[in-house]
Amino acid sequence: MVDMAATASSVMNSSRRIGVDVHGMMKKKYVSSWGLQIKAPTKVNVTKVGAINWSMLFPTVKTIPMKPMMMLGKEKKYPKLVPDLGLGNVVNDDRIFGQKFCIRSYEVGPDGTASVETLMNLFQETNTNHLKTFGFLGDDFGSVDMSEKNLTWVTIKMQMILDRYPTWGDIVQINTWKSAYGNNGVSSNFTFCDCKTEEILGRASSISVMMNKKTRKLSKFPNEIRAKQQKYYVDTPAIMDQDITTWSKGNEIIKDHICKGLMPRWSDLDINQHVNHAKYIRWILESVPRTISENYEIESMTLEYYRECTADTVLQSVTSILANHKGKIAMDNIHCQHLLEFEIGGEILKGRTRWRPKRKNGDAGVLIK
Amino acid sequence: MVDMAATASSVMNSSRRIGVDVHGMMKKKYVSSWGLQIKAPTKVNVTKVGAINWSMLFPTVKTIPMKPMMMLGKEKKYPKLVPDLGLGNVVNDDRIFGQKFCIRSYEVGPDGTASVETLMNLFQETNTNHLKTFGFLGDDFGSVDMSEKNLTWVTIKMQMILDRYPTWGDIVQINTWKSAYGNNGVSSNFTFCDCKTEEILGRASSISVMMNKKTRKLSKFPNEIRAKQQKYYVDTPAIMDQDITTWSKGNEIIKDHICKGLMPRWSDLDINQHVNHAKYIRWILESVPRTISENYEIESMTLEYYRECTADTVLQSVTSILANHKGKIAMDNIHCQHLLEFEIGGEILKGRTRWRPKRKNGDAGVLIK
Repeated sequence: MVDMAATASSVMNSSRRIGVDVHGMMKKKYVSSWGLQIKAPTKVNVTKVGAINWSMLFPTVKTIPMKPMMMLGKEKKYPKLVPDLGLGNVVNDDRIFGQKFCIRSYEVGPDGTASVETLMNLFQETNTNHLKTFGFLGDDFGSVDMSEKNLTWVTIKMQMILDRYPTWGDIVQINTWKSAYGNNGVSSNFTFCDCKTEEILGRASSISVMMNKKTRKLSKFPNEIRAKQQKYYVDTPAIMDQDITTWSKGNEIIKDHICKGLMPRWSDLDINQHVNHAKYIRWILESVPRTISENYEIESMTLEYYRECTADTVLQSVTSILANHKGKIAMDNIHCQHLLEFEIGGEILKGRTRWRPKRKNGDAGVLIK
Repeated sequence: MVDMAATASSVMNSSRRIGVDVHGMMKKKYVSSWGLQIKAPTKVNVTKVGAINWSMLFPTVKTIPMKPMMMLGKEKKYPKLVPDLGLGNVVNDDRIFGQKFCIRSYEVGPDGTASVETLMNLFQETNTNHLKTFGFLGDDFGSVDMSEKNLTWVTIKMQMILDRYPTWGDIVQINTWKSAYGNNGVSSNFTFCDCKTEEILGRASSISVMMNKKTRKLSKFPNEIRAKQQKYYVDTPAIMDQDITTWSKGNEIIKDHICKGLMPRWSDLDINQHVNHAKYIRWILESVPRTISENYEIESMTLEYYRECTADTVLQSVTSILANHKGKIAMDNIHCQHLLEFEIGGEILKGRTRWRPKRKNGDAGVLIK
């Protein structure tokens, strides 16, 4: 249980220390409300154990901008895995892990496509099973030697680009690999494709750092633990370590939509005794106007997590729809920014989303409604 | 979208027609608010295609009361299936379908065990994949010939007994088979076991009937469709067609706990454009006092669904804790009854749950907190 008064006090004191500019490019230094400064990497400090064959990760290439290195290996086939109860498998290079999932009946919404929360959950599942192949998964999301030091992983940033949403019954394969992120962070990178068409459906990165489970403060990455883990890292920056929504300063907020009184339940907590990073997306979407969530779908998303959240708290979600420099909203591509905060004050996360109109199967540019 | 005024009117008019006594045994006739009378079966009207080998469904037998027929085949081994991406497989008798699931990291709560909602979701997934093996799954939960008549399946009742909750990483196998339920209903029956220990973890039944997707009213089971489907039914009543909470008339309600202002989101709707039956459990649990949901776990549950619910409605959840004839609550076995209704009036579902204290691994009778 969380002491509400203590939480509130901590929240109020630290809310001015967050070093992220949500309107412009992500700053290079990320100062967490937990007090640890995470330096974004200029050079990735990982033991180089040979060049990775990127081709296996990108069977087909879409036109959405990616870092040049990620464009290698066009038109290669996606690697075939032996299905193994969905428990995943190492993909050729033992630092890359792949897992197939069949999109289940309850993982899709009324339009038959998988929800963003489902995709975030599947990324997490692939990530934890990847850690398991290394032997780095204890009773929580950390390794046994992390548990001995009361450390666990927490996510501080998540970025996704979604080219197409899988539908009920589709089999998708998620590939993941890890890379160092500064001195204290780890980037988990994901691509996922439709196993039938071999089309890449999206990409994502999440940045994790260590948290002390007792003090609930971020921690440095102990050298002896890093020495064990970094040989499994791939020598590359995060797949999407860039701001994917570059609004000009001329952007104006047309309207704020606020949803108050959101209350995390005990069942929303994960094994780390706080709300899991994937669950926040529900509350963000609470304040998105229904005309957007029903007629549009998220094309890209950046979420930055500032502090953890437990049960017995009351949250509010704010969505601001942005206009272009002419003061108008481009109806074919809606930009939003999001804030999730405690009602008593204190930011939990900030996010940005870009939405495109949903299309009927096979049609281009025709809205469902 | 639902016309709120029309919904309210319909709700008010039909709320007195529900023929279920939530305090006593379930009545034999179930009168739905949708207007169709579902007759509970006295004899199962199914084409008998040979005796089923029940032994494959019950590898080990627990002491929780079950119908005598279900006790056959003690100590038999659980059938081994070829893992197939979790897509399931027919188990010997082609009317019984089994599917293995690995409990995922995001499917467990802060105590590491799978949630009731997760289990209900996995039952539904096994059920739909079972229909798929028959060729009875179209674009929604119904078959193609049902879709042609604008019909789909809706759940009107769900019963579960949970002997032990699986934990993160456990591999469970769910076996399912169908049987006729009166003239218009179908019972889907489930057992699930821990694949490692072969221990049965729980059993469940759900009763489904047909709904016209345009009129949103329940429909009779057309003869020509039933003729196709019933050859896949097993000649047995529902696995748990009995009231598992038999309170005496001396029971008293100690206290009502009410949670108001619950609002289904668009993303809570399923492919049938209404809230999926498994989602309601979230709102039921909203009104369960936290001291119960944190320290106890559901041992058995009966949910009876009276009408569908869509987005743009506001619900309230009421939990009543029952006392014994001495006016006291038995702390080792808490009985609750639940009501989910529209705030403007009109019952959506009634339910009953029985809770037992959570135990530490390996300990007997020791509460976690």
